[in-house]
Amino acid sequence: MPERIDASRRVVIENVEPELDGGRYAVKREVGDTVQVEADIFKEGHDALSAAVWYRAEDEEGWRESPMKFWDNDRWRGSFTPDRNCRWFFTVVAWTDVFGTWQSDLRKKYDAGQEVLLELFEGAQLIASAAAPLAPGADRDRMIAFLEEIVGDAKMASAGLIERDSWPAFRDGVEAAADLTLAERVAAALDPALLELMARYPLRQDLTRYDRELPIQVDRVAARFAAWYELFPRSMSDDESRHGTWDDVIGKLPYVRDMGFDVLYFPPIHPIGRKFRKGKNNTLNPGPDEPGVPYAVGSEEGGHKDVHPELGTMEDFRRMVAAAREHGLEIALDFAIQVSPDHPYAREHPGWFNQRPDGTIMYAENPPKKYQDIYPLNFYGDDWEAQWAEWRDVILHWAEQGVKIFRVDNPHTKPVQFWEWMIRQVQEQYPDVLFLSEAFTRPKMMRALAKAGFSQSYTYFTWRNFKGEITEYFTELTQGPMKEYFRGNLFPNTPDINPEFLQRGGRPAHMIRAVLATTLSSVYGIYSGFELCEATPLAPGKEEYLDSEKYQIKAWDWDRPGNIRPLITRLNQVRRQNRALQEYDNLRFYPADNDNILFYGKMTEDRTSMVFVAVNLDPFAAHETMLHFPLPDMGIGWNDPWEVEELLTGERHFWHGGSQWVRLDPDAPARMFRVRAWRSSERGFDYFMEPTLV
Amino acid sequence: MPERIDASRRVVIENVEPELDGGRYAVKREVGDTVQVEADIFKEGHDALSAAVWYRAEDEEGWRESPMKFWDNDRWRGSFTPDRNCRWFFTVVAWTDVFGTWQSDLRKKYDAGQEVLLELFEGAQLIASAAAPLAPGADRDRMIAFLEEIVGDAKMASAGLIERDSWPAFRDGVEAAADLTLAERVAAALDPALLELMARYPLRQDLTRYDRELPIQVDRVAARFAAWYELFPRSMSDDESRHGTWDDVIGKLPYVRDMGFDVLYFPPIHPIGRKFRKGKNNTLNPGPDEPGVPYAVGSEEGGHKDVHPELGTMEDFRRMVAAAREHGLEIALDFAIQVSPDHPYAREHPGWFNQRPDGTIMYAENPPKKYQDIYPLNFYGDDWEAQWAEWRDVILHWAEQGVKIFRVDNPHTKPVQFWEWMIRQVQEQYPDVLFLSEAFTRPKMMRALAKAGFSQSYTYFTWRNFKGEITEYFTELTQGPMKEYFRGNLFPNTPDINPEFLQRGGRPAHMIRAVLATTLSSVYGIYSGFELCEATPLAPGKEEYLDSEKYQIKAWDWDRPGNIRPLITRLNQVRRQNRALQEYDNLRFYPADNDNILFYGKMTEDRTSMVFVAVNLDPFAAHETMLHFPLPDMGIGWNDPWEVEELLTGERHFWHGGSQWVRLDPDAPARMFRVRAWRSSERGFDYFMEPTLV
Repeated sequence: MPERIDASRRVVIENVEPELDGGRYAVKREVGDTVQVEADIFKEGHDALSAAVWYRAEDEEGWRESPMKFWDNDRWRGSFTPDRNCRWFFTVVAWTDVFGTWQSDLRKKYDAGQEVLLELFEGAQLIASAAAPLAPGADRDRMIAFLEEIVGDAKMASAGLIERDSWPAFRDGVEAAADLTLAERVAAALDPALLELMARYPLRQDLTRYDRELPIQVDRVAARFAAWYELFPRSMSDDESRHGTWDDVIGKLPYVRDMGFDVLYFPPIHPIGRKFRKGKNNTLNPGPDEPGVPYAVGSEEGGHKDVHPELGTMEDFRRMVAAAREHGLEIALDFAIQVSPDHPYAREHPGWFNQRPDGTIMYAENPPKKYQDIYPLNFYGDDWEAQWAEWRDVILHWAEQGVKIFRVDNPHTKPVQFWEWMIRQVQEQYPDVLFLSEAFTRPKMMRALAKAGFSQSYTYFTWRNFKGEITEYFTELTQGPMKEYFRGNLFPNTPDINPEFLQRGGRPAHMIRAVLATTLSSVYGIYSGFELCEATPLAPGKEEYLDSEKYQIKAWDWDRPGNIRPLITRLNQVRRQNRALQEYDNLRFYPADNDNILFYGKMTEDRTSMVFVAVNLDPFAAHETMLHFPLPDMGIGWNDPWEVEELLTGERHFWHGGSQWVRLDPDAPARMFRVRAWRSSERGFDYFMEPTLV
Repeated sequence: MPERIDASRRVVIENVEPELDGGRYAVKREVGDTVQVEADIFKEGHDALSAAVWYRAEDEEGWRESPMKFWDNDRWRGSFTPDRNCRWFFTVVAWTDVFGTWQSDLRKKYDAGQEVLLELFEGAQLIASAAAPLAPGADRDRMIAFLEEIVGDAKMASAGLIERDSWPAFRDGVEAAADLTLAERVAAALDPALLELMARYPLRQDLTRYDRELPIQVDRVAARFAAWYELFPRSMSDDESRHGTWDDVIGKLPYVRDMGFDVLYFPPIHPIGRKFRKGKNNTLNPGPDEPGVPYAVGSEEGGHKDVHPELGTMEDFRRMVAAAREHGLEIALDFAIQVSPDHPYAREHPGWFNQRPDGTIMYAENPPKKYQDIYPLNFYGDDWEAQWAEWRDVILHWAEQGVKIFRVDNPHTKPVQFWEWMIRQVQEQYPDVLFLSEAFTRPKMMRALAKAGFSQSYTYFTWRNFKGEITEYFTELTQGPMKEYFRGNLFPNTPDINPEFLQRGGRPAHMIRAVLATTLSSVYGIYSGFELCEATPLAPGKEEYLDSEKYQIKAWDWDRPGNIRPLITRLNQVRRQNRALQEYDNLRFYPADNDNILFYGKMTEDRTSMVFVAVNLDPFAAHETMLHFPLPDMGIGWNDPWEVEELLTGERHFWHGGSQWVRLDPDAPARMFRVRAWRSSERGFDYFMEPTLV
């Protein structure tokens, strides 16, 4: 007896897409997306094949089926649309289309004048075996009717399976029949309606299933399309001498919402440690009233499940969450796995940390730097299972308070396998919880965290300022393998990163970065002060902010002269009104002759939404260039006139041809073009654009 | 308790190469090759990592280990050299280099003037725990000696593991010691010799193993480097009226060997069916004496395990195999899974075939074409396990007669999974058996057969004649993913394929194709008559030969005027003398300014063998061009003079610079350049080439 034969694998099914590391990790989609599935499918010889996608939500027992179609070069394509926010699975099945093969062979032989009586009988056997298991009804009746037309014998046709030993009766019957010619029988057998009917009840010979079930993490749409705004709640009193409260935050909700943001994100809101507390501008000897760094989580007043008392009570916090929701804003919290020496965990679970021979707990360090105000965790120390469960429970605790988005601080300093476990544990219970990875580190670690489950990731966008590097990086993000699992959330600034480009380029630089962040990705965010063009560095050559809110309470002048709130408001409005900007992997770069001007666009697949963006990347000088629009991709003929609306100015143009001139001033460094209509030579003007969405 | 945690997977190991479809299939190498292994390896934080390749032959229980080194961007590299012809497996392991991390941190802290006493104690603990399990000997003694220099306390140093509660004694001892300063202790701890010593007995914290064991099929070298010659034994009588015998074949061995071939391949040698026998030129009404088509295997005289009686007995066959071996020739047989209606299988195992309702066995057809002289097998019919085992046993039978190479006829019309099973079954018993896939079909099926286990594959070479298409196709074969598992065996002609290029281009065309076949791949073959420039088609526009040996016995004039035996002899000699031509994936194309001239080269990795080839692809006209040699890749400076030998003429040149002129006549359409020496400005002439090998 031969070993290791698996006769259920006759059809070769391989190179299935989307598939990440052989199915080890889930690709990501959002509710309502159409998942396109492709596979190489073939077997030996010349038989016709059929194939289908099998798919199911994680909690469903059975598979649903969606047909695949042959594309080219043994490649097949199909699709399905997951309609719920949870994990899904799919696989590919294929089988020999025995009836299609039979019909096609019959046609060739009959056309070549060959004897086909035996073939007709074999086809009748196939039809009878497909009809046999069917419940009485129209389809079964139609099969029987075709069968009668082929065998010319109502009794044989209705008798269920046609056995091999009926052949002499069939042969003799055909020879004796005067009322039904062979040509008529063949015509019935070759009827495309019969093929279609049989395809609905396929005889799945050689049914083969791809040997992996491939996971898809289907998130809610906010995973892909959202605008984030980050602020320090304690600075919301507008008075440096008074610690802000949740009520102060409530007072700022209209400010944030009026700019068009969706997500309001806070650095850690928990009690702050006292031991080794840092002072203003990261100094080591703070005064007694200095508030400390929120990332030194935990004090006698509580830890990761508590709110800092000076901000208010948990009840106040929940009230703020509800008020935000009423303003159309969702709250995102910071999740920083590190504790101050005063954190309850440090007393209660010393085994969760690295203990030194002298009995002390090891503080954070990156030699020779020391961070004595922070204890890192040992994820593989004593009682580690309880520790991992506790971190998961922290997230579940806040999810119960209505918080469903977490920005995770420095995930790359914690084990990747911890994140993979924790995120799955949380999303099985709360599939709508999203995690943003704040890993500014080596590229493979950033990708590994996204594969492990992070819904979104910070990117190198903050340091990509010129045409070549932006084009290369965003082509990698949105058009290479990463697009399947890594959603880049673009921040032009963060409390830790005040980039040199903003420091030196002033207001034009802020406008440039705002346009890029809002249009290169469908998800982006700013840290408050950006809209006010705050970019004073701690010192020349430093990337930190002077008087950073990380170390002190600040009072902002929200109407500071020169602020770019109107631009940001308009950009968020444009994003809501143009579906093309709400997609992530549809970014494409197009030629502009001047290297200081970046030109790119986004289109929906149906081309009812198309937006093109030209940005002058030089904050110091005006530049002019020819832009080369991709008319063929846009569905516009070279000789068709077309109409565009400039989304930042409201101006309209009639254009003809793909090459158009722009001049971009530092004071208005970008143009955004929405294609509104075009006229083909046959059809007149076609106002094909969607109506304004919001 | 958290679910699904695997704490043994802390280090991320991914993108391991070579890996084929997630380890589903084996990559191919040959005995003596160095297998280069790469992987992305990283974990959270800043610890130093170490990594190794684990590898073993299939029949070995334990793993052998070969170290990996960090390369760049989280990529690590290692290698090992499989030294036996069998299947091998490898995987990758990585762990935290705790001692290396500790030493590096100590250095940074000490250099920054920080307190390091506790660190010294922790390091001593590491050294003691590495020394504890070691057998007494030099390495253990050296570790203890280092330990004494660090702790300054012979008793503590020799006591095996240093427990945490020794810390106060250590601290007090350091403070009290006058003879050993802190600086001296630190110097001992930072000694590179200590790091090297500790690396030999690594403390494998976080030891993580890649989750797949990746297979490598290690074949004998003949899988990659061989020259095949195909002939019909029955034509070896040199008399069309007399059926050739094994003794006639023995008489032709010097002819084949003198041309330099290694493998002598025969179409099927078994008894030939009588029913529906084909006549000359594939006619349907042969005379009684016509010999039939060898591919209609089986008659009353036997089947796949027998030799055609007119060729001789099995004893004669074995004598021929032995005589061939004495001439340095290995015999390859054809394996055609199809039987004539007269084959014993047709009588004994009707269930192995497709039976029709009228009781007949279905003959082969590709509607509307019929092949009534051949019954195809049904691989999934009654008693299929016995059938599969029988086909395996056919191969084993011939292996027992000393035949270790099989050219498989039309494998793409049999199930891929059958081949995967059968080849493994055979190679487990006879690892030196090689299979050549004769699949001229769609590209993905050709690749699937190679992945399933075929050692070599026919290619589209036969129909690739021009510069662009040759460059594109051979770049795909030798430089893309296929190079890991698909060895293209190039045949300029076969009994079925008399390409138009040869029909029309005459002797120059045969010379062109001979040079291409012998140098584009390390393994190639010709079907007899090619060296005589036989290319008369059955009819204009047909790709078949007139009076094909498939249907009749032929007598060849082996000295036919205009034959290219001297060229083929020289090419085979050049292949034996230049190691660069014995490798497969080292082919590279280089620029030549004339599109009629193809220019390419092969080098060994150590560059002791470098051969460049320029071929005029136009059989009708002379062409001239500038060739652009890749001097940097060759290790030759732009200002160095270098010496080349023309391998087809023996001429030598001193050259300077990379651009050299050639003129190639149809009568001598190729030049082959062997780089013999070069002089760098510093070193004088460097005759670095290997001595002639044979």
